[in-house]
Amino acid sequence: RVNGDRLWDMLMEMAKIGPGVAGGNNRQTLTDEDAEGRRLFQRWCEDAGLTMGVDTMGNMFMTRPGTDPDALPVHVGSHLDTQPTGGKYDGVLGVLAGLEVIRSMNDLNIKTKHPIVVTNWTNEEGARFAPAMLASGVFAGVLTQDYAYARKDMDGKTFGDELKRIGWLGDEKVGARKMHAYFEYHIEQGPILEAEEKQIGVVTHCQGLWWLEFTLTGREAHTGSTPMNLRVNAGLAMARIMEMVQEVAMSEQPGAVGGVGQVKFSPNSRNVLPGTVVFTVDIRTPSQEKLDRMRATIEAKGAEICAELGVGCSVEAVGHFDPVTFDEKLVASVRKAAEDLGYSHMNLISGAGHDACWAAKVAPSTMIMCPCVGGLSHNEAEEISKEWATAGADVLLRAVLETAEI
Amino acid sequence: RVNGDRLWDMLMEMAKIGPGVAGGNNRQTLTDEDAEGRRLFQRWCEDAGLTMGVDTMGNMFMTRPGTDPDALPVHVGSHLDTQPTGGKYDGVLGVLAGLEVIRSMNDLNIKTKHPIVVTNWTNEEGARFAPAMLASGVFAGVLTQDYAYARKDMDGKTFGDELKRIGWLGDEKVGARKMHAYFEYHIEQGPILEAEEKQIGVVTHCQGLWWLEFTLTGREAHTGSTPMNLRVNAGLAMARIMEMVQEVAMSEQPGAVGGVGQVKFSPNSRNVLPGTVVFTVDIRTPSQEKLDRMRATIEAKGAEICAELGVGCSVEAVGHFDPVTFDEKLVASVRKAAEDLGYSHMNLISGAGHDACWAAKVAPSTMIMCPCVGGLSHNEAEEISKEWATAGADVLLRAVLETAEI
Ligand SMILES: NC(=O)NCCC(=O)O
Ligand SMILES: NC(=O)NCCC(=O)O
Repeated sequence: RVNGDRLWDMLMEMAKIGPGVAGGNNRQTLTDEDAEGRRLFQRWCEDAGLTMGVDTMGNMFMTRPGTDPDALPVHVGSHLDTQPTGGKYDGVLGVLAGLEVIRSMNDLNIKTKHPIVVTNWTNEEGARFAPAMLASGVFAGVLTQDYAYARKDMDGKTFGDELKRIGWLGDEKVGARKMHAYFEYHIEQGPILEAEEKQIGVVTHCQGLWWLEFTLTGREAHTGSTPMNLRVNAGLAMARIMEMVQEVAMSEQPGAVGGVGQVKFSPNSRNVLPGTVVFTVDIRTPSQEKLDRMRATIEAKGAEICAELGVGCSVEAVGHFDPVTFDEKLVASVRKAAEDLGYSHMNLISGAGHDACWAAKVAPSTMIMCPCVGGLSHNEAEEISKEWATAGADVLLRAVLETAEI
Repeated sequence: RVNGDRLWDMLMEMAKIGPGVAGGNNRQTLTDEDAEGRRLFQRWCEDAGLTMGVDTMGNMFMTRPGTDPDALPVHVGSHLDTQPTGGKYDGVLGVLAGLEVIRSMNDLNIKTKHPIVVTNWTNEEGARFAPAMLASGVFAGVLTQDYAYARKDMDGKTFGDELKRIGWLGDEKVGARKMHAYFEYHIEQGPILEAEEKQIGVVTHCQGLWWLEFTLTGREAHTGSTPMNLRVNAGLAMARIMEMVQEVAMSEQPGAVGGVGQVKFSPNSRNVLPGTVVFTVDIRTPSQEKLDRMRATIEAKGAEICAELGVGCSVEAVGHFDPVTFDEKLVASVRKAAEDLGYSHMNLISGAGHDACWAAKVAPSTMIMCPCVGGLSHNEAEEISKEWATAGADVLLRAVLETAEI
């Protein structure tokens, strides 16, 4: 079993970097705070005897050697970046639990055949640079590095420039490492485990996702002196599309979600009808059929709504992955670990996207989840208990040991 | 008649200060560009022999003395501030046409019994600091100076601090000046004059207005892992309120408008349902009864929509004026001037709010309008012709001379 207090202390220490405004964190990817968080993690890893590799996407690989020089490493990881108003556990738990697994193995003097690599993936959140899971996507060969480097934040800064600026541009060719297996431990970010009073989520699948970015072009005009019948109202078109997205998601129940998180009006002045409205749609479901249908319906109906109002409409897909099925053997090993440790558990489909979804493209992968209070995440009030955190780390330790072979 | 070329040259010269990105202007109130525009106007006025007074709201009063020391002055003015993506004529035309009226009188050696004061009102647009017509509102005693000074822009800077910072905080007590009459010449900002092929709008009324600011409180949560039935979706509530505002305005046709110009999602991240949504509603109509009803309906239905979704809802009224009827005698004098000059004209209700609406509270007031291309305003593409600009200034000269008495 791991040392739960030590894990918790690391979580609390990391949370001091990039504090939020309401008890959580704002440590967005490729900011100075991200760089500082990485340095702290590096120091802890090196203190635990790990050696660092960093690739050209800024992914960090902290290696504990194995006994067999030919054996591929088992990777354990997640991400240290957060949402602008994020929690202290989303991502961070998986990285630091990986390190705690190593520290426990050191304490117990356990050697494994396969090396173990604790991994911090760059820009999992996708809040600053869309899409999410950007660096693991490049690692898995689904996205190109050129595409990733050109991603821009709201201020127009690029991923490539910012990676260099914060000093975490590594020299390893991204994706060159081969993995024997990939484990990711994460908070559920949803309400199911808590409601079902289970300690461990055995993650069998992950929902597929489309991120659509709508750009609507209306006619910028005076709100007072422009008669209703002469308006080309892009804001109204957006409102109708938002309602339509809700209806489409509801029509695919159960097992589908759809919503809007980001909106930008231009010029965003209260007595000007917007000339341009940009907003994002996030749709997800574990069903490939539903996912394809939702996307097609939303794009078609969105175009109809705009045409009716004379509003110009263009849609860019800025993020996408198909539903993922995790590796059967690893899933079984997680379930058995929970069983052996006497932790209550259930199968779970991940509602959120994770680096494991891309890792699954290039190596056997799976995830472990612990509950979070009220299912709340992407919120500074995100909360878990030390006991929950510890239980999942215990399961992680056992499953990793089985896979890395003692 | 005025010198139309000289007026046009001044307009083009002023437009060089705070250029926009698409041929218009970004010379928002109390910015460095506003200060520079004011200095240019001051210089021109002093060259024309006018003396300057500035009050504690930054309103500029440029005086040409009259022959009767006891006669109250006739004010002619509008505003030099613009929208963030504004046109070259909205407001500026009225101020510079006032100056051109003076320059023409100088050329012709005309003296008047009443002094004439060319006036530039601070923050007419209300884009940076809501509400619009802020400084004329304080001048007219409808708003307090303390209230005005405390108004904040999106960065949290206050009106009072910014007025001091740009160096245009005057020493005159605001509202101390008494006016014999107030004339404001403005582009229509709507499509009627052009459609009816009239050169002059004789403005008889101005629509009443409410600016409502909705603050909706949802639950910040993950867009992927939060099931539809557990969402407290403030963005969806906003979409429904936007549609409802549209319906309310349509149900009061003809002669009513309603729309949304400004929206702010927090944290505005594409995989986070917004915790807070703030947006503004702008409703206007010349009918007091409709205005009251629209406001009441929108507030009541807005609260209902939010209650249904479990979303918190608060509404602040950040701008308001009742419908205005302009002074009968001044209106007649404008109509007669157009008639005498042989300009085609028609009665008009102002769709936009103007400083004249507040001036009307403390002195006989009226407005003159000229057409603008496509009715477009609050848009950098706002356009008028030199001939249109000149015709209105001719009418202004004549009406002012009649009122100021030669
Ligand atoms: N786990 C997580 O929140 N990842 C960010 C990408 C997503 O929105 O699912
Ligand atoms: N004329 C003008 O656009 N004034 C700004 C206030 C308003 O929105 O009516």
